[in-house]
Amino acid sequence: MKQNNQPKIGIIMGSKSDLGVMQDAADVLKELGVAYEITVVSAHRTPERMFSYAKSAADRGLKVIIAGAGGAAHLPGMVASLTHLPVIGVPVKSSNSIDGWDSILSILQMPNGIPVATVALNAAKNAGILAAQIVSTGDETLVKNLVDYKESLKQKVEESAREMEGQ
Amino acid sequence: MKQNNQPKIGIIMGSKSDLGVMQDAADVLKELGVAYEITVVSAHRTPERMFSYAKSAADRGLKVIIAGAGGAAHLPGMVASLTHLPVIGVPVKSSNSIDGWDSILSILQMPNGIPVATVALNAAKNAGILAAQIVSTGDETLVKNLVDYKESLKQKVEESAREMEGQ
Amino acid sequence: MKQNNQPKIGIIMGSKSDLGVMQDAADVLKELGVAYEITVVSAHRTPERMFSYAKSAADRGLKVIIAGAGGAAHLPGMVASLTHLPVIGVPVKSSNSIDGWDSILSILQMPNGIPVATVALNAAKNAGILAAQIVSTGDETLVKNLVDYKESLKQKVEESAREMEGQ
Amino acid sequence: MKQNNQPKIGIIMGSKSDLGVMQDAADVLKELGVAYEITVVSAHRTPERMFSYAKSAADRGLKVIIAGAGGAAHLPGMVASLTHLPVIGVPVKSSNSIDGWDSILSILQMPNGIPVATVALNAAKNAGILAAQIVSTGDETLVKNLVDYKESLKQKVEESAREMEGQ
Amino acid sequence: MKQNNQPKIGIIMGSKSDLGVMQDAADVLKELGVAYEITVVSAHRTPERMFSYAKSAADRGLKVIIAGAGGAAHLPGMVASLTHLPVIGVPVKSSNSIDGWDSILSILQMPNGIPVATVALNAAKNAGILAAQIVSTGDETLVKNLVDYKESLKQKVEESAREMEGQ
Amino acid sequence: MKQNNQPKIGIIMGSKSDLGVMQDAADVLKELGVAYEITVVSAHRTPERMFSYAKSAADRGLKVIIAGAGGAAHLPGMVASLTHLPVIGVPVKSSNSIDGWDSILSILQMPNGIPVATVALNAAKNAGILAAQIVSTGDETLVKNLVDYKESLKQKVEESAREMEGQ
Amino acid sequence: MKQNNQPKIGIIMGSKSDLGVMQDAADVLKELGVAYEITVVSAHRTPERMFSYAKSAADRGLKVIIAGAGGAAHLPGMVASLTHLPVIGVPVKSSNSIDGWDSILSILQMPNGIPVATVALNAAKNAGILAAQIVSTGDETLVKNLVDYKESLKQKVEESAREMEGQ
Amino acid sequence: MKQNNQPKIGIIMGSKSDLGVMQDAADVLKELGVAYEITVVSAHRTPERMFSYAKSAADRGLKVIIAGAGGAAHLPGMVASLTHLPVIGVPVKSSNSIDGWDSILSILQMPNGIPVATVALNAAKNAGILAAQIVSTGDETLVKNLVDYKESLKQKVEESAREMEGQ
Repeated sequence: MKQNNQPKIGIIMGSKSDLGVMQDAADVLKELGVAYEITVVSAHRTPERMFSYAKSAADRGLKVIIAGAGGAAHLPGMVASLTHLPVIGVPVKSSNSIDGWDSILSILQMPNGIPVATVALNAAKNAGILAAQIVSTGDETLVKNLVDYKESLKQKVEESAREMEGQ
Repeated sequence: MKQNNQPKIGIIMGSKSDLGVMQDAADVLKELGVAYEITVVSAHRTPERMFSYAKSAADRGLKVIIAGAGGAAHLPGMVASLTHLPVIGVPVKSSNSIDGWDSILSILQMPNGIPVATVALNAAKNAGILAAQIVSTGDETLVKNLVDYKESLKQKVEESAREMEGQ
Repeated sequence: MKQNNQPKIGIIMGSKSDLGVMQDAADVLKELGVAYEITVVSAHRTPERMFSYAKSAADRGLKVIIAGAGGAAHLPGMVASLTHLPVIGVPVKSSNSIDGWDSILSILQMPNGIPVATVALNAAKNAGILAAQIVSTGDETLVKNLVDYKESLKQKVEESAREMEGQ
Repeated sequence: MKQNNQPKIGIIMGSKSDLGVMQDAADVLKELGVAYEITVVSAHRTPERMFSYAKSAADRGLKVIIAGAGGAAHLPGMVASLTHLPVIGVPVKSSNSIDGWDSILSILQMPNGIPVATVALNAAKNAGILAAQIVSTGDETLVKNLVDYKESLKQKVEESAREMEGQ
Repeated sequence: MKQNNQPKIGIIMGSKSDLGVMQDAADVLKELGVAYEITVVSAHRTPERMFSYAKSAADRGLKVIIAGAGGAAHLPGMVASLTHLPVIGVPVKSSNSIDGWDSILSILQMPNGIPVATVALNAAKNAGILAAQIVSTGDETLVKNLVDYKESLKQKVEESAREMEGQ
Repeated sequence: MKQNNQPKIGIIMGSKSDLGVMQDAADVLKELGVAYEITVVSAHRTPERMFSYAKSAADRGLKVIIAGAGGAAHLPGMVASLTHLPVIGVPVKSSNSIDGWDSILSILQMPNGIPVATVALNAAKNAGILAAQIVSTGDETLVKNLVDYKESLKQKVEESAREMEGQ
Repeated sequence: MKQNNQPKIGIIMGSKSDLGVMQDAADVLKELGVAYEITVVSAHRTPERMFSYAKSAADRGLKVIIAGAGGAAHLPGMVASLTHLPVIGVPVKSSNSIDGWDSILSILQMPNGIPVATVALNAAKNAGILAAQIVSTGDETLVKNLVDYKESLKQKVEESAREMEGQ
Repeated sequence: MKQNNQPKIGIIMGSKSDLGVMQDAADVLKELGVAYEITVVSAHRTPERMFSYAKSAADRGLKVIIAGAGGAAHLPGMVASLTHLPVIGVPVKSSNSIDGWDSILSILQMPNGIPVATVALNAAKNAGILAAQIVSTGDETLVKNLVDYKESLKQKVEESAREMEGQ
């Protein structure tokens, strides 16, 4: 698989320390052949940067934004308020988080009118797959990659099953 | 706005009693001009029906599936396991639910490989908007509707502000 | 007690429906003789309005901002990111909130560098008192009002005690 | 004790990584003299395999199915929807689980009509004992093994008591 | 369907006030054609009665015990400690319960060696079905009733689907 | 301080593995000069032993029973149901506990009529102090030891304060 | 039964509005024949009154203090810090409480050295019984009342059982 | 930056072991140029010391009190009851805390009339910044330090962004 040059997915995170989790989104997008860009945007420490990033995203050709953050995680919801693009939120279990509940609820419980597509705690990989699924609704060539990916998941389970049954 | 005839969004729910919540998804899709279909599919009581619904969804022209369910809510995740289309999950706070926590966690916490785009508790309206945003990534005419919708939200708040300041 | 004309406290809320809770802040500020202004500012539906409100607050003479919001409550934290003024957050238990946990955690769990002074669920009255306490650190005339207010609380309890003991 | 050749209990798990927990079910069944089979079946990655496993279970002579899974754990409930056999669910505290709450609620909170017999978090041993108890309702020879097992638990406690009292 | 005279299922509850919930177990057992008995046994107020009930259950011909209780719900676990029969626990959301969490955790989190087959909050109906499933592992005539019951659930969903699609 | 020979406090625990926590109760009782006995009594694995222990406690001269247990912790409540003596419950955070919530709620949420005096998670030391306070209501000589103990706590804090202020 | 004139139990509560719950403690003490006094003492609004109440309690002849409070419930713990008497805490589910969790944790989780004997949410009746149990450790005449009370609980359950079995 | 000699902020904590967390408040105040004092005051072990500390704080020239405590954390709320100064509460996740929930709820959920400005779990740094913000409402020279501090946070994020984009 190869990436075309124009990023379709913007991956952003509230802090450099979220990269350990968020890299999974980039990796699976690469595997699925979807071009992306990745950077740090903090809702609380760089609110102007967040504004200009979100406001310009559609014009720069992005189709989906993946935003990861921990604690009182306002980045995904605020970005969603500033663009009409679909926004995927990744709750990150950061060091002083209360078992991740704060991140989950801050991202999930958005008011009517401004959805955030929330995935599981730390599930940046699923955010990447979901972004690819979204892009694939207007891009048939990507569908095959997703179908192949699903097939590979199945084969790994069947292999595990054969191993366990053979013991 | 008008709907074309081919539904792009499939709205399903685990029980007829979820319609009070899930109707909001249909209403906002109508408002945004996106064709949809709506029915009942129970993961636990009609598993074969769920299989055939999910397996045939892409071929029938659906672009996104919105699935709502309460309690141990397996419908969104199981549908996601059976299609490459993006699936949006709506946790429904049903009568014997434990304050909605069971629905939320059953839908949100999907394993790696099989994402569900989860929205807030009972937030079927946001599920509809998110579905429209997803379709709009490959359909420019829908973008204007979404931008207008966002503008209408803003105007309502500004009107409330004027009222309150004028008191 | 009387208010001077220049508002020192800005009371804002994410939605007109929060007024039932947030009015308590205004009422106690009036009782304590602190001038305030009150309006609706939505982080998610009017992000530009939020930006200009927060950015201009200090220059307009405000000393403290009280921000109330429910669900994924981003208003207090975002305002705090946009001003050096102290910001008091009031978690509001809105209709689709998960028992208030979402509002509390979204407001309380702010990252290092950007504090929000959080009060109890729906405790707009305490937000008003806290705002008055903050202003009183630079305004001796207000101290007496606060001391009198504390005294009145004590007297009500002592009266209740006498009644109950006399039964 | 020895096993007869026809497995009466099917032990399945959503992922190979659950074996560290689920092996306890196999071990105690062996100790109690109940034949079992064990393999991997993923609700989300191998839904067809799950369907055929559950649909054929009764005809293959199984009497009880023990299903373990973590996170949004749909395996026990989906298997229960596909067979009339009793299904025992083991919530597994997997690595990205939210303290196990997601697994517990996804398995426990099944809707009316489709029960799952849920045991404690990670309690695969108890799942095994429960399966043996179920089989023993139609198999008198197994009752003695269960009574002996209970007696052995009692003796271990009494031994601990003597040690502690003797200190 | 008819009941034979010898009860196979014992339904007990900690308080008369649990009958509103626990009656569902009796009703579904009647529907499935399984004889039962029903009474009040309190772990905390009648511990001796609980002992003699549990100790004599197997000899009296019972195959399964269904025990429902609220709050610090010790009845299911204590009965399980006193018999080798399978015990099904129904967490009841009683008036001073903390949203049902106390009942659920008191029943579910049994230590190794003494399982309780826990069903969802207030799910006495599922407890009845599970009890019938257990008895059916040694009683082929009951299998048909369970299969018919499952079929009736399916038909009700399909009817709802037709209605909703026809709107 | 010295102990008289007749134990006034019975310390029991559900499992030998709880001793790491429960030893603190014994240690502080020794420090306060209150005689105790200590052993293992499991509600679930040795129910008869629990019955005879609790039933005979008052006649053997015990004044208070301290019972510690983890998970679905039924020991304190069941002992309280079998004696008129005050029972102190210590929730133990055992290995498969759900962050201790199961132990706390199983012990605390007793129904009307059968109280258990619950202390904090793992707080066996406080259980010991509370037991001494209870005995001291009928034993003046013990009051002095408790007053001295409180004084020693105060002095340690004042020493810490002096150190920190002196830095 | 009759009360002697010297109160042995002090019942206090943080607010007059707690009386609906706390009256149960007074009623059961009356039924058990233990003299009590009852009044309002607020930790936060009348801290000096709380100090003098707690400091003088032992000298005034009280043997046990029952303290009920809601929300951030500091009254039981602060009273315990100011007296060597045993203190029983009643978590009250007040109007703005978060399902009672705040009251429970504020009362239960006391640090080492200062125990509070915590009872279930709103369980003032059990607080009264526990207080009577404590007094009975030094007062044989009270033991009979407690034994009779336990017997009456048993008889009510047995009556319920006969009714239900007779249906 | 330099400190003037008269402390404006009093930092207190319930135990010497809280210093690992609370030192952050001191450090950021030093960085912002606000004079402080720091010591140990235990609500439960030194209640008289807490009374005299809080009662004398305003007269000694303090403008704000920062109080940190874990478990059933009564120090911030009790200090707030004893002074008209604004009190900032820092919930500390101590060793036997239940994931920090006990500290948070004990500090946050204060009754009407007595606010505590609560910050995130372990967020003593934010408590320090908030205290400086409060003092700055009456002290223009401090505003510049706060604005500079905010600017430095922004620059660190922008630097991280450049690094990540350059990879």
